[in-house]
Formats: sequence, C-alpha cells, structure tokens
Amino acid sequence: MDDVRYQLYYWPGIQGRGELVRLALEDAGASYQDVARLPESEGGGLRALMAMLQGQPAGMLPFAPPILVAGELVLAQTAAILHFLGPHLGLAPRDEGARDRALQLQLTVTDLLAEVHDGHHPIASDLYYEDQKAEAKRRAGSFTGERLPKFLGYFEKVLERAGPHLLGKDLAYVDLSMFQLMAGLDYAFPRAMERLASRTERLRALADQVAGRPRLAAYLASERRLPFNERGLFRHYPELDAG
Amino acid sequence: MDDVRYQLYYWPGIQGRGELVRLALEDAGASYQDVARLPESEGGGLRALMAMLQGQPAGMLPFAPPILVAGELVLAQTAAILHFLGPHLGLAPRDEGARDRALQLQLTVTDLLAEVHDGHHPIASDLYYEDQKAEAKRRAGSFTGERLPKFLGYFEKVLERAGPHLLGKDLAYVDLSMFQLMAGLDYAFPRAMERLASRTERLRALADQVAGRPRLAAYLASERRLPFNERGLFRHYPELDAG
Repeated sequence: MDDVRYQLYYWPGIQGRGELVRLALEDAGASYQDVARLPESEGGGLRALMAMLQGQPAGMLPFAPPILVAGELVLAQTAAILHFLGPHLGLAPRDEGARDRALQLQLTVTDLLAEVHDGHHPIASDLYYEDQKAEAKRRAGSFTGERLPKFLGYFEKVLERAGPHLLGKDLAYVDLSMFQLMAGLDYAFPRAMERLASRTERLRALADQVAGRPRLAAYLASERRLPFNERGLFRHYPELDAG
Repeated sequence: MDDVRYQLYYWPGIQGRGELVRLALEDAGASYQDVARLPESEGGGLRALMAMLQGQPAGMLPFAPPILVAGELVLAQTAAILHFLGPHLGLAPRDEGARDRALQLQLTVTDLLAEVHDGHHPIASDLYYEDQKAEAKRRAGSFTGERLPKFLGYFEKVLERAGPHLLGKDLAYVDLSMFQLMAGLDYAFPRAMERLASRTERLRALADQVAGRPRLAAYLASERRLPFNERGLFRHYPELDAG
C-alpha cells in the first residue's frame, strides 16, 4: 500500500458516514484505498477493519469507523477527518476562521445524520428495525414535520446569505456532504422532500452542481459508488416518510 | 462589552452543552460574558440569545446554541468552539496532528452527549419527557447496559494508552469535557456509574484532578456553576438508571 496516500477504513457494503470521506477523496482525485472493500488476500476485508478498530497501530484509538490513515496519522470521526483532509485536497478555505466555519457547518450535518439514524433506531442501535418499528413510526412525524424542515431551512438560509456554496464563492468539502445529505434524504424520504421542494431550491441547485463535477459524476456512475440500501444510514421505509 | 474578550450565548438556567465551553473559559481565567444570564438592561437575557440565533450579526448563521463571539468571529457547535478556543486558552496542543486528535476525542464526547439527550427524548425533542417515558424506559436498558460501558471503556482505554490526560502529558480542553461527562453521568445514572466504578478508575482520577484545578475548583464552588436539573442534558430519572 506504499504508493497510496490515504487508506479509508469503513464498513463494506454501505455508504454510511464513510461516504462523506469518499466524496472528498473522489472529488479531489486523491490516491486512496477503501481498505475493507479490498479482498483479504490484499490485506482488506472486515478483518482489516476490525484490526484497525482494536487499535493495532499506534496513534489515537478510534471509537468507530470511518477511520483515515495518512502516513503516521490515524484519525477517526467524519468531521475531524474532513477538517484534516480539506486543505490537503483543496476542499477547504485557507484561513483559520473560514475553516472553523466549515467545521461548524459539517457538525450540523453530523447532527442531522444522527437524527436520521435514530429515526430507524430510536431505541437501540443493536436491535433490528423491526423490533423498534412502533417507536420509529411515532418518531417519524416529528422528524419529517419539524426537524427536517428546520435543518434544511437552516442550510437554505446559509446558502441565501453566502451562496452559491455554503461558505461563499468557493466550493468546500461541506458542499459535497450537502449533496450526499440531499441524495440520501431523497432516497429515504421522497414524499417529505417533495413537500419541501419549494423551500430547498438553493440546496437543490447546489446538490445538482456538485453531482455534475466531472470527477464526482464519474465516481457516481462507477461501481465504487455503492447503492443506498436498508442496512445503511439512509433507509427507505415508506411508513416513516410523511405523505 | 468592549473590554470583554469572549461572549458566550447559551440557554440560561441549564448547564447543557454550553458548560463544556464555560469550563474551558473558566479554567483559563478568560475574560468572558455569559450573555443570556445577564439582565436585559445590560443587553442580556433570552432576548439577546434569540437575536443571535436569528443571525442578527454578520458571520456564519448558528443552528443552535452554544454560540461564541470573539471579535468578528461568530462560531457555533461546541466542538468547533473548543477547537478554536483551545490554542488561545492554552488548552490544546500546538501541533496540527495533536489538535486533530483532540477534535476526534471531543466529537466522541459529543456523540455520547447526544445519546444521553436521546435517552430522555427518544421520540421528539419537542415533546415532554412524560410523553415519551415508556420509550425512554425501553431505551434505558440498552444505554446503561451497552452504550455507556462501551463509550467509557473506550475513553478508559485511551487514558491507559496515553495517560494521565487523554492526549498524554498535557491537559487539554477535552479533559475538562471528560470531567463534565463524569459529573453529569454521576448525577443522572448514579447506580450505573457505581457498577462501572472498577472499569473507570483512570477516568475517575482524571475527573478528580480536573475538579481540583484551582480556577475550576473556585468556579465549581461559585454561583456561576449552575446546578444539574431536570431541564438540562443530564437528568436524574431513577427509572432510567439501571439498578
């Protein structure tokens, strides 16, 4: 793996939070390996991910994937990874204040992702959806009726103020995450998103622009882009999508 | 407010996430105002907080408190605020890699805090606890039996590797947050924490050391330290605390 600059460790088979890191690496055309998706014979697979989680190498122990390895650095937590990668990939502003604002926005994306996850797992991460479906249905009304409009309304207002990107003139990693958020929400909550269409026009324009960036368009059309599914973060359960 | 270096905007009456920022400012002896706790006649109160949330000043719009103002900078999201403040307050390592590791750890604290919050609000933030008590009780077993031991076991292992502080030799803001986490968990889950005592000895020693730092000890004994209560993040509901 010596010629490769970055190694990403994430659950194989789902987009999940790892996808936010993949999008940044792909958009920048960075040289990276998606380790757990390599065959075990090449040092990949779940075995490699579990070894990393148990803190085999030196460095800060990770609590959960995604984990990025860059030379000596072993870093976990999606927003921390993107904060680190941003300047290296040309996907963050240079000055410290603007980098802090990018981090602030990315952490608000993180908050919304956590609420999306808890939408299908309101009781326990280690129970099946079917075992907490009643609670999930009860939670769904508050999510699609209150929380989702509040979060998207916030991001839309940020765009209205700054535009055309979340931080202003230049695209940054948080814009790529916003594309992923919109794509995942479209998949999981098509009816709720349709109802919010007129209030998310700037977000939609941004997501479309991101999807059309040449390297990202090629990635999205490739086999490297995993499909959404019901084991991931964004799950399409029609009973949770407000009509 | 011109002589004061920092303004913190947070809900008055609760410790909440704002307390993680307060602890850093207090430990450093920084000059700051806790704006929403000032009288309205001095520009404080809830009115000042609501104006800030509506994005009255220039700068990045906040989604939610806490919000820190430092001159021109307006920054929200607890971990982003601490990442910014760390070097200014002498509460972060100087090199970039170590700052990233501090951010990684702080974001794992954030994750645990979100699970604590959802423990009493598993269905909706805008419903009363009493209206989601059945779901909260169902969730509590998983939290005190699985998630809490997993998170604390992780932090204990980080200390075992690095010690005596989370990042090693020098104390950083994330150690102050860890003190707050232990204090809040002791308040909310005294029985579960008692059961975990033998597996959290390093965390306990760290929390005790932090609480004994002269400026923090003075703060904790002062009226500026709000008491824990059942409107905050850490709530003592005996029915949610595993026996």
